[in-house]
Amino acid sequence: MRIDILTVLPELLESPFNYSILKRAQDKGLAEIHVHNLRDWSTDKHRRVDDYAFSKGAGMVMMIEPIEKAINELKSQREYDEIIFTSPDGKRFEQNDANQLSLKKNIIILCGHYKGVDQRVRDNLITREISVGDFVLTGGELAAAIISDAVVRLIPGVLSDETSALTDSFQDGLLSPPVYTRPADYNGWKVPDVLLSGNDQLIEDWKMEQAYQRTKELRPDLLKKHDDE
Amino acid sequence: MRIDILTVLPELLESPFNYSILKRAQDKGLAEIHVHNLRDWSTDKHRRVDDYAFSKGAGMVMMIEPIEKAINELKSQREYDEIIFTSPDGKRFEQNDANQLSLKKNIIILCGHYKGVDQRVRDNLITREISVGDFVLTGGELAAAIISDAVVRLIPGVLSDETSALTDSFQDGLLSPPVYTRPADYNGWKVPDVLLSGNDQLIEDWKMEQAYQRTKELRPDLLKKHDDE
Repeated sequence: MRIDILTVLPELLESPFNYSILKRAQDKGLAEIHVHNLRDWSTDKHRRVDDYAFSKGAGMVMMIEPIEKAINELKSQREYDEIIFTSPDGKRFEQNDANQLSLKKNIIILCGHYKGVDQRVRDNLITREISVGDFVLTGGELAAAIISDAVVRLIPGVLSDETSALTDSFQDGLLSPPVYTRPADYNGWKVPDVLLSGNDQLIEDWKMEQAYQRTKELRPDLLKKHDDE
Repeated sequence: MRIDILTVLPELLESPFNYSILKRAQDKGLAEIHVHNLRDWSTDKHRRVDDYAFSKGAGMVMMIEPIEKAINELKSQREYDEIIFTSPDGKRFEQNDANQLSLKKNIIILCGHYKGVDQRVRDNLITREISVGDFVLTGGELAAAIISDAVVRLIPGVLSDETSALTDSFQDGLLSPPVYTRPADYNGWKVPDVLLSGNDQLIEDWKMEQAYQRTKELRPDLLKKHDDE
């Protein structure tokens, strides 16, 4: 899988893509992530990629031209399955979107910045708008990092069996059960007896029950969704 | 405001905190962000901070001891308003949480990793569990970066007037209206006539109408929430 990220702040993404799972996936040849500086497609001598909004006091807006040039150049080199724009008013990103995207071959992620991107970019060049949540960030770079992480870790071979994504929260429509490790007693805080029982079946039953109870208490909406499917 | 981040992967956070708004806020003395390596509190000669879960095949779990030591050391130095754990089963992070947190003085963010953290940490040491969304990440580091960005940019003086957070999506319960910048005609893709009219009142009315229509179309749930309040 190949991910091309278009941003005005490529420096911000250096460490997220050079450590952790994203680095490992790239080293193993399972994913390629290319971070591009949008300014490379600016036709302005100051390499500007933003301009004043057509509306008093609305701040700076990312211009259409450098973005179109960048996308066209990438599209001339290979076919893209999706051209994603990260924006707080996009479709909310959920595990199912990560699952879907992990099956794609090539995607572009355009990171929003300033007060947003010229609407004509969204109307004409973007295939999918994604929001990582109902909050506003300084730019879409961290959103792009989150999408990349959530997606790339699902590509077979990226995670070791031990950390397999199949037991993650949401993959079975439930939150994960609580987890414990040694010591069994820490300053009087004890792990539940069942986990020390050595009875695998009992432990599995307990985990299912805990996952269900936790979901019911914290996120009853997930159970509802689950029942509806 | 001071944010202390506890993580097993401090390297991952280097560039997000050294570029963009978070760097500017720190340079202006408006925010202090300290990223701590949890391994510094390990008592193991290999500096391990994780161990096998009490349950077959459940992967690695972050141990309680280094986390408790780290939190206690920080708490001995100053009072903390919140000790946050980032986890997909926490309370979903929204703009209102960012608003609230931006008024705090000192917070700790503990980043989850591996298959999670020993439940006793969550039961005894954490004051608030936050999820940035219904998806699973390799670790809580990017979630901590997102929370920090969303919160710090709200501290007065961090953003310039031009990029003021007051006109952001969600702050008034509506999505932002579309934005446009020059050129007015790009390869036949035109900006709406009203924006070229020079009539500020007309433009303001159009923006409000667009924000409302866009919210109604994309996120009717926000309008409902707004009406309920």
